Amino acid sequence: MAPPAWPCCTMSGSSKVTPASPIYTRRLLAYCYLCGCCRSGRCCMLNRAEIAAVVCDLDGTVYLGDQVIPGVPAAIARLRASGRRVLFLSNNPTKTPTEYVTKLTKLGIPATSEDILTSALIMAEWLAAQPGAPRVYAIGEPALIRTLQSHGVQLSDVPGQIDYVLASFDRTFAYPKLQIAFDAVRAGAKLIATNPDKYCPVPGGGEPDAAAIIAAIAACADTTLQFTAGKPSPLAAQAVATRLGLPITSCLMVGDRLETDIGMAATGMPAALVLTGASTQAMADQWTGPAPRIVTASVVTLVDFLLT
Amino acid sequence: MAPPAWPCCTMSGSSKVTPASPIYTRRLLAYCYLCGCCRSGRCCMLNRAEIAAVVCDLDGTVYLGDQVIPGVPAAIARLRASGRRVLFLSNNPTKTPTEYVTKLTKLGIPATSEDILTSALIMAEWLAAQPGAPRVYAIGEPALIRTLQSHGVQLSDVPGQIDYVLASFDRTFAYPKLQIAFDAVRAGAKLIATNPDKYCPVPGGGEPDAAAIIAAIAACADTTLQFTAGKPSPLAAQAVATRLGLPITSCLMVGDRLETDIGMAATGMPAALVLTGASTQAMADQWTGPAPRIVTASVVTLVDFLLT
Repeated sequence: MAPPAWPCCTMSGSSKVTPASPIYTRRLLAYCYLCGCCRSGRCCMLNRAEIAAVVCDLDGTVYLGDQVIPGVPAAIARLRASGRRVLFLSNNPTKTPTEYVTKLTKLGIPATSEDILTSALIMAEWLAAQPGAPRVYAIGEPALIRTLQSHGVQLSDVPGQIDYVLASFDRTFAYPKLQIAFDAVRAGAKLIATNPDKYCPVPGGGEPDAAAIIAAIAACADTTLQFTAGKPSPLAAQAVATRLGLPITSCLMVGDRLETDIGMAATGMPAALVLTGASTQAMADQWTGPAPRIVTASVVTLVDFLLT
Repeated sequence: MAPPAWPCCTMSGSSKVTPASPIYTRRLLAYCYLCGCCRSGRCCMLNRAEIAAVVCDLDGTVYLGDQVIPGVPAAIARLRASGRRVLFLSNNPTKTPTEYVTKLTKLGIPATSEDILTSALIMAEWLAAQPGAPRVYAIGEPALIRTLQSHGVQLSDVPGQIDYVLASFDRTFAYPKLQIAFDAVRAGAKLIATNPDKYCPVPGGGEPDAAAIIAAIAACADTTLQFTAGKPSPLAAQAVATRLGLPITSCLMVGDRLETDIGMAATGMPAALVLTGASTQAMADQWTGPAPRIVTASVVTLVDFLLT
């Protein structure tokens, strides 16, 4: 008999469960709890040899506000030295890739804009590819506006001319923007968003994110969100595959948020949850969405596991 | 055999349906459609002799913005001359009763503050009656703040000290208010609201109302609304009964919005829908909530019917 490919399943007495089994994704956490491997950060459900690239969230995963999470720069350096590509994928549309490069470099993680994908960039590329040059009313901070403009997206704040109302994380959000969005949707515009995040984790708390803006518009204009560009959308997975030139099944999504980062598991990416931001172990225990392959303390313990 | 009390039921072949029947409320529109009495504004389901007072919505029912709906001042005068009390009940918390008196008088409808109830006033009375002097963070316009202060409600914008985040119709809403609400809810505050309206009808469109503010806070802070003070809440029905000294079953609620004005039917008030504001006949046809006793063009046709 061949040695079991998934030792923790053997340990928990369920060696018949393989990644191809229909119960694999849904029951993963339950099985791992039996042997405790997820809690110890050494989950054997993650086949390390298959991981060619790590796609890493930023807020709550690499840093909180302007504070880098201890040990992460060295861990990223070790990952790169092992030959694995590291791509940063953030739902936060309040910085351009160039600004993220500056921030990461300052925090001790050298990067180029080729290493960065944002929900704003993915949305700008999608909008620029639409036929008929749709007009967009963007509720967002200057970085989003600049990203859209640099992709040639047509912007408008005249309700009757707007094809898409684009909601995003906007700390300059105010009632006059809500009024334009309301009027535009009532005149036929569709509601789309860069990202669905509830709040952005910052030291000591959070900042209300795009979910608040989306909900405000949807509630008053009696409409529903069409799609988001960022995690956990298939558009984001497609952007990862295009940028890395790899099948998404070999790209490990690492992040702190169940709904977005771990939600990417539904697109076919393996996903790892770190507990340095929005999620706790208790939240992971109750999570009924696509399962993470591993739940671990931080990017540091994840990299320890990957490189063991 | 006694003559049927509800001729339209007889006309539609359903004379066994009486107000005491469990299908009465749910099926009312369907029955009335058979004889067409609702469409003609002459619904016999409304027992005119039982109506001692008319509780009248304002935005979309009496006026749109600063324009009075034609004929309404004369209709209100006829109603009062018939001996029926007229009380104005608005979910709009952006004016104090005194300001509504001024507005109504200017539009040709003499009134005193005894004739006015608002969602802000009902909420202020509820908060003032709570034990322990709860601290409230009010997201609202100056009229709401003044109403709360005049009732001795304690206001605070320090998240850790706030017991209730009070959302309302606020055209001065901006991100810093959302941040305080988010922080307060995450620190344990409960989310309540003056009113649940999606938008306030104004000439040519609408203004995003409290529903947008409620939804924004609920979405980012992952909470749910506890209750609203205005229509269609039982608190509003109780305030009507107290103010008029009448059983609510003899007070006819008249308004343009299904969710709020007609929603009051669930509290036991008979309700009449007018088509001068937020609702169309098509929306009334699809409405599955508590049924209006009558659907009619405006307050003018309603008063014609009541006084015939």
